[in-house]
Amino acid sequence: MSGTTETTEKTSNPLENVLIFSGSAHKTLAVEIATYLNLKVSPSTCDKFSNDNLDVRLGVSVRGKEVFIIQPLSPPASDNLLELIMMLDIARTSGAKSIHAVIPYFSYARSDKKDAPRISVAGRLVADLLVTAGAQHIIAMTLHSPQVHGFFNIHTDHLTAYSAFVNYFKTQDLSNCVVVSPDMGNAKRAAKLARSLGVPLAVAEKLRLSDEKVAITAILGDVAGKRILLVDDEIATAGTIVEMTRALKEKGAGAVTVVCTHGLFTGPAVDRLNNMPELEEIVTTNTVPLPPEQRPNGIKQLSIAHIFGEVIKRTVTGDSVGELFEFWPTS
Amino acid sequence: MSGTTETTEKTSNPLENVLIFSGSAHKTLAVEIATYLNLKVSPSTCDKFSNDNLDVRLGVSVRGKEVFIIQPLSPPASDNLLELIMMLDIARTSGAKSIHAVIPYFSYARSDKKDAPRISVAGRLVADLLVTAGAQHIIAMTLHSPQVHGFFNIHTDHLTAYSAFVNYFKTQDLSNCVVVSPDMGNAKRAAKLARSLGVPLAVAEKLRLSDEKVAITAILGDVAGKRILLVDDEIATAGTIVEMTRALKEKGAGAVTVVCTHGLFTGPAVDRLNNMPELEEIVTTNTVPLPPEQRPNGIKQLSIAHIFGEVIKRTVTGDSVGELFEFWPTS
Amino acid sequence: MSGTTETTEKTSNPLENVLIFSGSAHKTLAVEIATYLNLKVSPSTCDKFSNDNLDVRLGVSVRGKEVFIIQPLSPPASDNLLELIMMLDIARTSGAKSIHAVIPYFSYARSDKKDAPRISVAGRLVADLLVTAGAQHIIAMTLHSPQVHGFFNIHTDHLTAYSAFVNYFKTQDLSNCVVVSPDMGNAKRAAKLARSLGVPLAVAEKLRLSDEKVAITAILGDVAGKRILLVDDEIATAGTIVEMTRALKEKGAGAVTVVCTHGLFTGPAVDRLNNMPELEEIVTTNTVPLPPEQRPNGIKQLSIAHIFGEVIKRTVTGDSVGELFEFWPTS
Amino acid sequence: MSGTTETTEKTSNPLENVLIFSGSAHKTLAVEIATYLNLKVSPSTCDKFSNDNLDVRLGVSVRGKEVFIIQPLSPPASDNLLELIMMLDIARTSGAKSIHAVIPYFSYARSDKKDAPRISVAGRLVADLLVTAGAQHIIAMTLHSPQVHGFFNIHTDHLTAYSAFVNYFKTQDLSNCVVVSPDMGNAKRAAKLARSLGVPLAVAEKLRLSDEKVAITAILGDVAGKRILLVDDEIATAGTIVEMTRALKEKGAGAVTVVCTHGLFTGPAVDRLNNMPELEEIVTTNTVPLPPEQRPNGIKQLSIAHIFGEVIKRTVTGDSVGELFEFWPTS
Amino acid sequence: MSGTTETTEKTSNPLENVLIFSGSAHKTLAVEIATYLNLKVSPSTCDKFSNDNLDVRLGVSVRGKEVFIIQPLSPPASDNLLELIMMLDIARTSGAKSIHAVIPYFSYARSDKKDAPRISVAGRLVADLLVTAGAQHIIAMTLHSPQVHGFFNIHTDHLTAYSAFVNYFKTQDLSNCVVVSPDMGNAKRAAKLARSLGVPLAVAEKLRLSDEKVAITAILGDVAGKRILLVDDEIATAGTIVEMTRALKEKGAGAVTVVCTHGLFTGPAVDRLNNMPELEEIVTTNTVPLPPEQRPNGIKQLSIAHIFGEVIKRTVTGDSVGELFEFWPTS
Amino acid sequence: MSGTTETTEKTSNPLENVLIFSGSAHKTLAVEIATYLNLKVSPSTCDKFSNDNLDVRLGVSVRGKEVFIIQPLSPPASDNLLELIMMLDIARTSGAKSIHAVIPYFSYARSDKKDAPRISVAGRLVADLLVTAGAQHIIAMTLHSPQVHGFFNIHTDHLTAYSAFVNYFKTQDLSNCVVVSPDMGNAKRAAKLARSLGVPLAVAEKLRLSDEKVAITAILGDVAGKRILLVDDEIATAGTIVEMTRALKEKGAGAVTVVCTHGLFTGPAVDRLNNMPELEEIVTTNTVPLPPEQRPNGIKQLSIAHIFGEVIKRTVTGDSVGELFEFWPTS
Repeated sequence: MSGTTETTEKTSNPLENVLIFSGSAHKTLAVEIATYLNLKVSPSTCDKFSNDNLDVRLGVSVRGKEVFIIQPLSPPASDNLLELIMMLDIARTSGAKSIHAVIPYFSYARSDKKDAPRISVAGRLVADLLVTAGAQHIIAMTLHSPQVHGFFNIHTDHLTAYSAFVNYFKTQDLSNCVVVSPDMGNAKRAAKLARSLGVPLAVAEKLRLSDEKVAITAILGDVAGKRILLVDDEIATAGTIVEMTRALKEKGAGAVTVVCTHGLFTGPAVDRLNNMPELEEIVTTNTVPLPPEQRPNGIKQLSIAHIFGEVIKRTVTGDSVGELFEFWPTS
Repeated sequence: MSGTTETTEKTSNPLENVLIFSGSAHKTLAVEIATYLNLKVSPSTCDKFSNDNLDVRLGVSVRGKEVFIIQPLSPPASDNLLELIMMLDIARTSGAKSIHAVIPYFSYARSDKKDAPRISVAGRLVADLLVTAGAQHIIAMTLHSPQVHGFFNIHTDHLTAYSAFVNYFKTQDLSNCVVVSPDMGNAKRAAKLARSLGVPLAVAEKLRLSDEKVAITAILGDVAGKRILLVDDEIATAGTIVEMTRALKEKGAGAVTVVCTHGLFTGPAVDRLNNMPELEEIVTTNTVPLPPEQRPNGIKQLSIAHIFGEVIKRTVTGDSVGELFEFWPTS
Repeated sequence: MSGTTETTEKTSNPLENVLIFSGSAHKTLAVEIATYLNLKVSPSTCDKFSNDNLDVRLGVSVRGKEVFIIQPLSPPASDNLLELIMMLDIARTSGAKSIHAVIPYFSYARSDKKDAPRISVAGRLVADLLVTAGAQHIIAMTLHSPQVHGFFNIHTDHLTAYSAFVNYFKTQDLSNCVVVSPDMGNAKRAAKLARSLGVPLAVAEKLRLSDEKVAITAILGDVAGKRILLVDDEIATAGTIVEMTRALKEKGAGAVTVVCTHGLFTGPAVDRLNNMPELEEIVTTNTVPLPPEQRPNGIKQLSIAHIFGEVIKRTVTGDSVGELFEFWPTS
Repeated sequence: MSGTTETTEKTSNPLENVLIFSGSAHKTLAVEIATYLNLKVSPSTCDKFSNDNLDVRLGVSVRGKEVFIIQPLSPPASDNLLELIMMLDIARTSGAKSIHAVIPYFSYARSDKKDAPRISVAGRLVADLLVTAGAQHIIAMTLHSPQVHGFFNIHTDHLTAYSAFVNYFKTQDLSNCVVVSPDMGNAKRAAKLARSLGVPLAVAEKLRLSDEKVAITAILGDVAGKRILLVDDEIATAGTIVEMTRALKEKGAGAVTVVCTHGLFTGPAVDRLNNMPELEEIVTTNTVPLPPEQRPNGIKQLSIAHIFGEVIKRTVTGDSVGELFEFWPTS
Repeated sequence: MSGTTETTEKTSNPLENVLIFSGSAHKTLAVEIATYLNLKVSPSTCDKFSNDNLDVRLGVSVRGKEVFIIQPLSPPASDNLLELIMMLDIARTSGAKSIHAVIPYFSYARSDKKDAPRISVAGRLVADLLVTAGAQHIIAMTLHSPQVHGFFNIHTDHLTAYSAFVNYFKTQDLSNCVVVSPDMGNAKRAAKLARSLGVPLAVAEKLRLSDEKVAITAILGDVAGKRILLVDDEIATAGTIVEMTRALKEKGAGAVTVVCTHGLFTGPAVDRLNNMPELEEIVTTNTVPLPPEQRPNGIKQLSIAHIFGEVIKRTVTGDSVGELFEFWPTS
Repeated sequence: MSGTTETTEKTSNPLENVLIFSGSAHKTLAVEIATYLNLKVSPSTCDKFSNDNLDVRLGVSVRGKEVFIIQPLSPPASDNLLELIMMLDIARTSGAKSIHAVIPYFSYARSDKKDAPRISVAGRLVADLLVTAGAQHIIAMTLHSPQVHGFFNIHTDHLTAYSAFVNYFKTQDLSNCVVVSPDMGNAKRAAKLARSLGVPLAVAEKLRLSDEKVAITAILGDVAGKRILLVDDEIATAGTIVEMTRALKEKGAGAVTVVCTHGLFTGPAVDRLNNMPELEEIVTTNTVPLPPEQRPNGIKQLSIAHIFGEVIKRTVTGDSVGELFEFWPTS
């Protein structure tokens, strides 16, 4: 009867047909996700030919496998995007059973509208490129706006890091806190966190002067004397955070804790942040890699690997994902 | 040489090859747009077969013509959408040179995100249906969120009615006014109008309890003693307007003027609005039809026909549209 | 060994991964089909937003499931079609393993040709819309013409209700009967039934004056003194049946039994039929709902739920459907 | 002023940008159509490589041209179809402005339904292949069933030869004639001709035993002593015509004139027809080539070149085609 | 417990869900491949209707099956290609789980570039037609150039017959041999075989004068006194082989063994080859059928059925194919 | 009559509707092409957002215009490719009449086959991405292999620089020259040039050890004492040129002139080439930019701007391109 038993055991591992690949962007996260699933990251390489073309290879056969490719679109964004596209193409033309693009940070979600004539809604364009290359399922986190979900017309899971943030803050005394959104467009997300933590909300009116420069023209709501939880989806050069912190200080606010899903800290970000003594802590996640030289003081990086791991597992077993994230289902 | 002269005259009318059709939703607007272009609306019919299928016909040959089909997705929305889809299909399979869907009110733009599990981002779905049916160019106005633009990956013009609103208000004394947005998601649009009119901004925090019921949990900004310009993109049952007006009254605000692009006034809207004495005026446009029984007191309907007419003309002549709407380019 | 036994039992139910959803059109039929399969209909809702947009939700996770959505396109046809399209879209973007549209009455099959200039072959158009929305497999019954099958280029099962009709009539004495087709286009179907029942055939020449009015210009074949089995695919306002019965009476025919797959009985149908004393019985099926007020006298409704149920089962198990319906494979 | 005059003359010829190509199937018809348009057929070649692949070339540049490719799918059907597909592909990849497939005989229209399990609705399949290869517009004549029109979702003109037939018969004394349809499926077409000629209709009930063999089981309507106009869309081996003529003779009918759009006369057709003394005349068209050895006695071939020519001209000038064929618009 | 055992046994045959069909081109090869897999070729038929259309049927239900259709594009190439396309279409519209086109000889790979204006890159065109018809996976052997792989953007396995050739020659004394490529374009393949057999390489410069006629303008490398292994991918009329053998003789070469994957031997090939006494042996494979009258003297046909069989098996089980052919992975 | 004259003058400039845009890769070439056409390059910008996303804008309205976008895929290849893709997308979604991608150096043409398992045929993939983004016409030069033409199934012009090379060399005394191809795959191109210049050909057998390292295993043909014209399509790190020059020197060859369409000179190329005294001259073109620090000694850069300019002009006027390049039509 051992044969029967073996068959039984075999079918009891629903992940046996799963392969996890990682692009070059963030191997550490891929390993963490794979470890959650008791799997290894399968080998792959990405080099450049002498004419600067990418030379991408998958190291094991994907024939008949359920292939998950993990690649946030962190800098260098163009190379990382094309590497992902080529990995998808290889999986498709080599006979994968299903092809899943796991994109913890979908950078082009920020290009989500035509706010000037003759620009590209590149979030939609990149969605189309991914589908052209073979993606059948997208797993992403905290897209810049919830509408970006609709840029994909394939199976798409839009995850949130709020469960990680709520877990982190729920042990703290938040009685004097106020959640502040630096932007009206982001205010609904901030309101959600505020309600979840049981604290009030304030919203700033921000005028974007350029990609790196903003002006805070007003803060609607009461912030004087409060500890601030400043909530944003993404920090790049930290221009918004710096201006907000200044404006909050002018309004008499207390110490500021930044809460942000995608912590890129590019260009002058680290210097700028380290020069703001009002900043007590910067709570971010590991959707993008964070090398030592890009870590500002007071940084706290929460892992979201288990969230992606659990969604991958449930995708394979056919269990509901919505159940898991019932309070913060899609953004 | 008269033959030569005729040729010259003929080529001097760039719109000679254009046909304007109207679905059943809003024939009046179609006539107004056609009149702006010195054209007639071409005949078409929409009946129902005895099995409730739509029976749609275009009344003149479209072979080699540039066909513009005007149809806002006002109620009955399903019939109006399918009628538009069938008109597009007829134009395509009958040899039109180019096919333009003019959708002054794209109702499904409101279904722009997954705010609950297992719902449809129907804005994207309907965009795909229109393209499947043959649409090559979309002309729409004030989409619920600017990201909906990206739901289309064909040529899309996203127009705004703000020029009509600004023209209307610029002769009034606005020194004691404040522009109020009832919703953070809409606040950027309201801010734009506020800056353009030179008045301050206030923003409410709205909690949607159901499709028809909302609660106003806070108003951020100074409204006491002010005349209010309450700005929203669309009024259906007017639940938000009613709650906002109540909340504004509680805060000591003065008379309220509502400014709204798409004035549907469905269900209890007229009764509700007529019972709010604080409402001085309701300024809307003619993107959707407004039959007498759906007109609340104090309604002022501005025509946007010339805006659509001008964009149609420039589409045909190849002139820039951005130049025309330089201050309010895409939303 | 109980673990082994459980696994064995589990794999012995090939339908464990199947979900049956029903649109609003005909919940009763969906329950009947599900019951045949020992399944429950999974919850879903369809409401209208205040702007008349449909608000459609699936109530359970479809991730990795084989999803069958049951929706005849009975009146209100536009709403029912769009509801189906949105349900397909939800299944697709939420990760269903396979998506099957079960459309017992595909109303747009009647729009199968261009019999006037500048109309839509809407049967083909609607087929394309369903595929755009995510349908991978169509199960339909008695399409108005067999060519409509070719409007779909995906997996399509075209079922017939003749087995139900043959079962019903085979216990009756048909020695004095003649099968009559009211239309040459439908005559092949009637001939099939006639041969199967072993009775002769007669065919009328019908001139359609309008959607609701027809003239019978001739009856080819012998009907005097015979009991008539008048066979048609669909009854809406019953204009054809009424005219045929009159023409048959003029030719000296006896009592008339109507046999019809899709019994809609819209508009004046019930009044008209109840005023025809020659009509003995009207045998139809439950492809569309038949509320009490639409039931003419002498109505007999045969269930086709088991036919759909069996095809769903064999689709999942990979067994042949052709074998099942060997005498009436595709109509 | 001669420069001006030249420009004027140049723009006065709307066909200057048109190229007519002919596949190998029917060069004579192509020349006739081109002559109607005052054009020459542009050179092209079709040979076979030594491995039996087709070697197809267009002989002049198509860059920026409106390309019409004329090819009925007469035998050898596979070669003719692939030649057409390759000509379309060449036009597309070489920069044609528009690409029109003129298919006077679309043979695969006969494969329009699944009348047996696991066959191809090849009419739809071939439609998809033509679109894949680059066809943007189809011009066809007398498709086997009108529903085949819907197999194409691009611009499609479905022409009829009835105007040629009516012109031919209208000078004859038809007072003792009856139009007979050998098939219920075809009866609507026959009824149209009958009404147009002012003569009665009879319809046969045909049972197809195999591709080449049919049985006539009944003739509904009065034929005794009448001159017969036997109307069918297509004659291949003439099995139906022979059986019908025999059955008509048994019923006491007089001389038979066959009226048929597509006269292929393959296999035993000529011998069979020449052995039927009851056959007075066979009136067909030149949609397919008719070499001397395939011409039965009493053959009369009417040209439909002017019909295709006129539709090509109106396609280019953007004039209505429906106006032209107002009595027989689509079948 | 026998129930349990049965389940276990059932799941132990991974090919139980596989169906092998064969087009008309090469039933013998299909049987050989099926036999390797312990399967039978499933029944199918291909006839011609009287209008020369193909009449293709699959003889067993494909619902839920993994369908492999075997069809080299040998002469008659147009019929064989369309038969394959129709078989694919039937599998798709009848509910196959997966659809694999096994094309041992993809003749249109020779049309892989535009070496004259206004010809078709028919290799790409045919790839698109196969995908349109429903192919999801291509298994082909020795495409004329390796770039043809890229004409498909679906899962494609490009196999090689070199393992069969190496097995055949490795027992022979090759000390005095030289591998000769008759064409620079083919030289890389010849070089691979030369290295594998440990013998030197020579390359001819060929000028193609027409499809059937070539001139050898130079032979680069040492051939005098050597036994020649003349390597080409395909022999049709054998023009190249004849010219090469003459040119080699002039250079003093010894006996010639031809090595060629696709041995078509069309037209004058057999006569030409039989008249070349220098030709010692012609080693080919069974990718195409080789009827007795097309067998030149000295022909040796190696079977490649096991290579295709093994790839089919591994496709179903999800095992790597690259492992199998590690030395000759893709060409 | 002045109105008439104006019309005449207006229509006499067929390029009035043309816009030339340039990506960042090679503005100099774009200016040269535009100058040939008496046009200006239209403004556009490409910056990077702080998250490393590209920020691309077109500076003038493209509505109704024929848009040509010039961008070789030189390093940085990923950024240049994505910039081109975004420019195409902007043109499409902003209403361009036609969209032409002018890609003088299509770098990914080198990824044209699967020479290892699980790599991407990225040439095909990138072709699909360009079409997804909106490209309707490709103009490229000297693709790595002629089969890459087939990776596109849209209108594609594959140009050659040979006319520039022949013009350059035809005034020189070539009596002691031999054309040498460093690679069998490239030998056909070299043979073409050799025939055109009336000099003999030699071919090397090259073994690629890695992306940057090759071994020359043999030279077939006579090179001793000859002046060498070493012909290749592309030079990146110059590994092949260096090895070839060494091998030629060993065989007693004289001075070497390199002839190469795409001169990238990346990495160690300049140092390597400057250290080869046998290299007399390096003749290349301006398909890619050549900054001073990447110019080896003896470099001679021929302009191909007029070739692209002429093809653009003829595309717009609908004149044949094949006529222009009759001797070297597609490479």
